[in-house]
Parts: sequence; structure tokens; C-alpha cells
Amino acid sequence: MLINGENTEYVAVTDRGFQYGDGLFETIEVINGQPVFLKQHLARLKAGCMALKIPLSDNKPLIDEIDAVCKGSKRAVLKVMITRGSGGRGYRQPDNIESTRVISLHPFPDYPDINSQSGIIARFCETRLGLNPALAGIKHLNRLEQILARAEWTDPAIQEGIMLDINNHVIEGTMTNLLYVKNSIIYTSSLKLSGVAGVMRHIINGLAIEQGFKLVEHDYGKEDLLAADEVFLCNSIIGIWPIKQLEQVNFKVGLVTKNLQKALQALKDQEFANAR
Amino acid sequence: MLINGENTEYVAVTDRGFQYGDGLFETIEVINGQPVFLKQHLARLKAGCMALKIPLSDNKPLIDEIDAVCKGSKRAVLKVMITRGSGGRGYRQPDNIESTRVISLHPFPDYPDINSQSGIIARFCETRLGLNPALAGIKHLNRLEQILARAEWTDPAIQEGIMLDINNHVIEGTMTNLLYVKNSIIYTSSLKLSGVAGVMRHIINGLAIEQGFKLVEHDYGKEDLLAADEVFLCNSIIGIWPIKQLEQVNFKVGLVTKNLQKALQALKDQEFANAR
Repeated sequence: MLINGENTEYVAVTDRGFQYGDGLFETIEVINGQPVFLKQHLARLKAGCMALKIPLSDNKPLIDEIDAVCKGSKRAVLKVMITRGSGGRGYRQPDNIESTRVISLHPFPDYPDINSQSGIIARFCETRLGLNPALAGIKHLNRLEQILARAEWTDPAIQEGIMLDINNHVIEGTMTNLLYVKNSIIYTSSLKLSGVAGVMRHIINGLAIEQGFKLVEHDYGKEDLLAADEVFLCNSIIGIWPIKQLEQVNFKVGLVTKNLQKALQALKDQEFANAR
Repeated sequence: MLINGENTEYVAVTDRGFQYGDGLFETIEVINGQPVFLKQHLARLKAGCMALKIPLSDNKPLIDEIDAVCKGSKRAVLKVMITRGSGGRGYRQPDNIESTRVISLHPFPDYPDINSQSGIIARFCETRLGLNPALAGIKHLNRLEQILARAEWTDPAIQEGIMLDINNHVIEGTMTNLLYVKNSIIYTSSLKLSGVAGVMRHIINGLAIEQGFKLVEHDYGKEDLLAADEVFLCNSIIGIWPIKQLEQVNFKVGLVTKNLQKALQALKDQEFANAR
């Protein structure tokens, strides 16, 4: 783990990340020392910093530190955090912001392959996502909604919880984005009022369009989701997981989901070929 | 500063306060080594912990640590933070939660007395509060909205920014609750969908009712506020500040505000008399 380039596991209590959740993060798959889709993750991190007005100086130290932390790892999860750094008490940001960089490596979760192949079991969460256009889409550190939602169940057979917003629109999973297929059209939430616009969601949206699918971002409810032909979840660590069961409804792992899984694997292979 | 009873200024980067803003805080005035309205602050802290399901074991170490940190201070700001403690990567909380206590003392801000006597200048913020019934009222660590709002102005003549929600209802200041008086009735936002239910707001509501005022919690807009007879802000550090100017509208410091200021001072005097 590196914090501002130093080998430590502690941050100042005055760091605004700790005081107010004043920062952002990225969660990235690492294979053979290489962070997967790093370019896309850094682009989103920069966009988030711009939205929150956190200065992120040039990429050089960040990328050097990421390389140093990932080096020698066969497979892992890389977490990159940027906060507004230390400041006095109170919401007002310091005049000279020196942002904090935290680069850490974590064991890759031992998800069984069957999750991608046969799908997982999901549930609906009681906790509702609030509506907040100023923060929607951003992968910031204000994550109490996800924590309350994830605390709702402990049954290890249930792999993910689906979250609705306070208007009863389906938005996403606690740690994933959610897409569904109906009559060969792919649907997903627009994330204009809540949710995180995941890097993997962005990549999959691109693959779907490349493959000639119509992709629709819209508001939809539970009943639309439960009437879908295929449902799947995605994030940068799991890739694509079909949902095989949601509450009492069963779904098949359909062709659209399988094609997108194949296209995603091909894209990753290509990225690695280019890196070599 | 004490963190879990230890004299340090650093927290583990794995602390969920840092990772996700997974915690709560209180900001308390200290006079002659004594935290003012401590009982009320601890009650709110406990209620917040219950709402977020953060275990807060018995008060004893917390109060001992607060006493130790405040001892010998003539006037200061005490900040008490409770987080869900350290846990692995991911939103799921650890099976055994050991919450983190951070007790820190800060210089009392050098607010001029004239703020309380003649009132302050406020503005409306562009940043809107989101709607989130599950978190509304709680003084949690997810404070990006307040940070974005407070970053909107730097003019030192403006002491506070007033925040509306996405429905254009007036809710509160960035660091204060907001009340207004019209025809001798006191009005304030209900804080059911956003905002922080401040300890000082709670105390002032009690004083207002004791004094025979009718107090109404309701949804209201800019135009209601700008047509008020008196407007004032409150929190545990400033007490009560009248607003003398909001955008282009001037307000007088009225009798209701002055009476509540007097009653608040009497209550503080009484608390100190009891403590001696």
C-alpha cells in the first residue's frame, strides 16, 4: 500500500476523506501485474475529481505508484482513492488543496466460475437510493446507502442486492450496475438521479452498441425487470454475472449475456496483447 | 486528540470512516473544560448509531475520553466521531464491528459578537440537497453536498449559505439549521427528506414551545423565507445568529430571535450552575 508515495497504512485523522467522505475511488482488476482497463478507470477518476473540484495533478506519480503496487501480482484487486487531503474543521475546503492518493492491493475474491456461467441469486433491498443529481454517477466516498443495503442480508447464497430509488425505479446492485434484455433490446437505468456510472457498465454499453444491439437508458420498475428475458450485473471485478434468480423469478442465461461475456473477454485479451 | 483512547493523530486507512464515510459526528462547544449540552449530543450520537447500526458500547470510555480532552480548555470546539471501524474491502460490514472513537479539540472560531447581535449576511447556494429519507436528519459523515455548497463562495462578508433541496424547498444552512418567524409563528423545515437535525435546533424548538410560541415544521420555498419577519440560524457553536441580509432582502433582528437568544443563554447558565 502506498499513501502519497509512502509505505504506510495510516492517514491523518484530519484527512477530509475521513472527516466527510470527501473523495473518490476506483476498484480495478489486476492480472499479471497489469491493471485492467486502467485508462478508462483513470478517465473516470479525473472526471469525478473535476465534478468535486478536487485537484488531481499530473498522472505520472499516480501511475508510477499503481505500477509499483501491482508489480508481481498474479491476480488482485487494486483500489485507488483520491481525497481532498487534510484541512481544518468545517466544510470549507482549504485554500491550498493537497489531495491524498491511496493505492492499495487486495486479494481477488474467490468467486466461483459458476457465477459467470450459470448466474447468481439476487434479492431486492429495502434501503432506497436517494435522489441527488449533483452526485449521481460519481464513484465518491459517500457510500452509506450501499452499506445500509448490504447489511440487509447475510445469506451467502445471495450474491447481490438490487436497489431501487425512492421513486421505486430500479437503479443498480449494491456493488454492480444492472442491465436487462427484453426482445433483444438492452435496458439500463440512466443514473441521472442516483447510482454509480461503472467503468464496466460503460465498456459493456460500448460492446453492446458495437454488436448492433439497441441500448436504452430509461426509468423502469421491478415489474419490468421481473418480466425481462435476461438480466445481468457487471462491475470491474466480476465482469458480467447473469442473474438466474431474483426473489421468486427465474431467468435463463441468454444469448445476449453470453455474447457480451465473450466480447468482454476478447477486449481484455486484446488489451493484454497490446500491452505485451 | 484521542483515538480509541490513544494519543495519536492517525487512523488506519482501512477504517470505514475513511473508506466510505461510514460513521457519525458531533460538534460541541466547550466552556471551562465542560462540553455544553453534552447529554443531548450523546443522545443524538446514540440515535444516529442505532439508525446506522453502528454498535456504541457503554458511554463510560467515551465520556472519560471527552473529559480528558476537554480538561483545562477555557473555550474550544470538541468534535466526537464514531465510525464502524476497520473492515475488509467492500460495503459488507465486518462480522465483529469494533467502532472507532475520535475525540478532538479545536480552537473556537473567532466569530465577532456582532454576528449574534446585529445578524449576518447569507446567500442562497446553487448546490441542491438530495432527497434521502433513510439518512435525513442524521449527522453522518457523508457530507459532500455541504462541501460542494460551501465551496461556492469565498467572500468573508458572507457568513453562511442557505441550501434548498431538489424540489426547491428551503432546508438549512451548510453548517446551521434555519428558522424563520412570520406573524409570531416560528417555522422550520421538517428535515424528513434531507438535512441535519441539529442539537441546537432541538433545544431552540423546546425553548420556543416553553415560551408559548407556535412552532410549525413544513415545506417552504425561497419566497416564504424572503417574506419573513425574522430569520435566524443556529448550531451548537454559534448559538443563534439572526440573518440581517439574504441576497437583496434585509431583515430586522426581531423580538422573537432576541427572546430565544436570552432563553438559550439562561439555559446554558443553568446547565453550568448545575455542573458546579
